[in-house]
Amino acid sequence: MNKLYIAERLKEVQDSICADLEKLDGDGKFKQDLWDREEGGGGRTRVIQGKVIEKGGVNFSAVHGPLSNKIAQALKIESGDFFASGVSIVLHPANPHVPIIHMNIRYFEMSNGTWWFGGGIDLTPHYVDPVLAGEFHRALKKVCDKHHHEYYTRFKKWADDYFYIRHRKETRGVGGIFFDRLNEETEGLTKEQLLAFILDVGYLFAPLYKTMVEPKRNLRFTEQQKQWQHIRRGRYAEFNLVYDKGTKFGLDTDGRIESILMSLPPMAEWLYDHHPSVGSMEAESLKWHQKEIDWIHH
Amino acid sequence: MNKLYIAERLKEVQDSICADLEKLDGDGKFKQDLWDREEGGGGRTRVIQGKVIEKGGVNFSAVHGPLSNKIAQALKIESGDFFASGVSIVLHPANPHVPIIHMNIRYFEMSNGTWWFGGGIDLTPHYVDPVLAGEFHRALKKVCDKHHHEYYTRFKKWADDYFYIRHRKETRGVGGIFFDRLNEETEGLTKEQLLAFILDVGYLFAPLYKTMVEPKRNLRFTEQQKQWQHIRRGRYAEFNLVYDKGTKFGLDTDGRIESILMSLPPMAEWLYDHHPSVGSMEAESLKWHQKEIDWIHH
Repeated sequence: MNKLYIAERLKEVQDSICADLEKLDGDGKFKQDLWDREEGGGGRTRVIQGKVIEKGGVNFSAVHGPLSNKIAQALKIESGDFFASGVSIVLHPANPHVPIIHMNIRYFEMSNGTWWFGGGIDLTPHYVDPVLAGEFHRALKKVCDKHHHEYYTRFKKWADDYFYIRHRKETRGVGGIFFDRLNEETEGLTKEQLLAFILDVGYLFAPLYKTMVEPKRNLRFTEQQKQWQHIRRGRYAEFNLVYDKGTKFGLDTDGRIESILMSLPPMAEWLYDHHPSVGSMEAESLKWHQKEIDWIHH
Repeated sequence: MNKLYIAERLKEVQDSICADLEKLDGDGKFKQDLWDREEGGGGRTRVIQGKVIEKGGVNFSAVHGPLSNKIAQALKIESGDFFASGVSIVLHPANPHVPIIHMNIRYFEMSNGTWWFGGGIDLTPHYVDPVLAGEFHRALKKVCDKHHHEYYTRFKKWADDYFYIRHRKETRGVGGIFFDRLNEETEGLTKEQLLAFILDVGYLFAPLYKTMVEPKRNLRFTEQQKQWQHIRRGRYAEFNLVYDKGTKFGLDTDGRIESILMSLPPMAEWLYDHHPSVGSMEAESLKWHQKEIDWIHH
C-alpha cells in the first residue's frame, strides 16, 4: 500500500468532515487555500468562520523532502528523505458552553522504509460537563475496541500525558486519545489495519463533535463567561506554542505558517494571577483538569 | 563583590522604576506579590493595571539551588548550584499608538565561580514611528557609549538576532539592545564595571519609556486600530512562548508561573492569514519589522 494511496484516503476524510461541519454550523462555509512547500509537497488549508464555530481549521497536507539532522535526531531516526501526510483540525466555538475540539491523523514514512501512523482526538471544554465528557470517551472507546482491546486504555493514558500543560500543572481539557509511531512491529497489525484504525478515528470526528455541540449550542452566556472562554483559550495557546509536537515539527520544517498556527484561538486573554472564586462554575470546572480521571465509569 | 550586594542593587532598580511608572501612568498602582521558590530563593512580582499601562509587570527575583543537567547542558556549563537575580519588565499599554516595552537585567553565578551579566531593552510599537525609534536607539547608544565604544553596535545587532520571530520572518519590533554572558574574560571589564553598565540600563528604562509614551498617550484610536494591537500582541505571545530564553529558563526551573508569564498580553487575537491592505498604516508599519535597520542615522 502506497503512501499516495494513504494521502488520498486522508483527503477524503478532510472532504467528509468539512461537509459535515458546514451542516453543523448552518451558516459558515469553508474557504480553501492551496499551498506548496518549497522543498516538496503542499496542502489544502480550509478555514471556517461561522455561527457555531467562531474559528475553525481543517487542514490536509502531504509534504516531503530531506529531513534535517536536527529533526532526525529529535525523532531518533536516521536522516534521509521523509514523507508526511495528515489531517489536522482545531475548532474554536463562539459559545463558551461549547467545547474546543482537536483531531489529527497522520502517516509518516522515511526513504529507508521506516513508517508509522499517529494521531488523536481531544476535547477542551471551557466548562467541563462530566456527563458529556463520559459520552465523548465512550465513543472513543467504541472505535478503539473495534481495532484492539487495549487501545482505549493505552491511548487514553497517552493523551492524559501528552495534552498536559506542565507549567500550569493542569490537563488541557478532558483528554481523549493520543497515539504515535504505530507500525507493524509495535502493534502486530498490518499497514492496512492501522490505516483502517486512523480512518475510523477520522470519520468519527464530525458526528462525535455534533453530539458535543447540540446540547450546548443554544445556551445563553454572560460577558463573564465569554471572558472565561478567553482565559481558557490562552491556556490552549500556551499548550500549542510551548508543547505541541505537531506545531514544533511544522515550525522546524518551515511549513506554511498560517496552516500551522490556525489552531490558535481567535481571541485570548491573560489576566495576572487570576483565580475563579471558590464554588463558582469556573472553579468547579478547573477541578476536572487532571490526569487519570476515569470518565467512562465516572 | 558579593551576589547579595548585586541583588540589593537590582531591588533598588525595581523600586525606582515602579515609582516612576506610577507617576507616568497617573492612575494605576502596583500590587506586589512576594513569593518563595521551593528549591531556593524567591521574588517580588509587581503588577500594574492602569490608565496608560493596561497590563504591566515589574518583577524582581533572586533564586538559587541545584541546576538540572538538562539546563546545564543547554547553557554549556558544568552542573552545580546556581544563583540568578534579575529585574524583568514587560508593559502592555492600553493605547495602540503607544509601544510595548521590555527590559531585563540579570546576574548569574555558579557554585564553581563562573559568573556573567545579561540583559536588554527592546521596543515593540504596534505602529512603528521611525522618528521615535531613532530617539529610542540614540538613548540606548548614549548609555552604551559610556561603558564601551563597541557596545551599542554589538548589542544592537544581538537584539536584531534575538528578538526575531523566525517563523514569521519578522522582528518583534524595532529592536534595541541585547547582551548575555558578559564577564571579565569576554569584556575586559571588572564585575564592578559590568554591574555599573547594567544598572545604567536599568535606570535608563523609566525615563526612556516616558519619552516613548508622552507623544502618543493622548492620540485617539479606532476599533480597527485596537484590533491591530491585539494581532501584534499575538505575535508578542508567539515570541515569548516559542523563543524567549528567559521564559524557557523560568518554565524549566519551575519558577513562579504567574511571574514568568506576566509578559503575556491582556488580550490577543489570531486571525487566519490576515494581511493589512496595501498602503494602510498597518502595512506601512510592518515594513519596519526587519533586521539591520540603522535607526540612528535613518
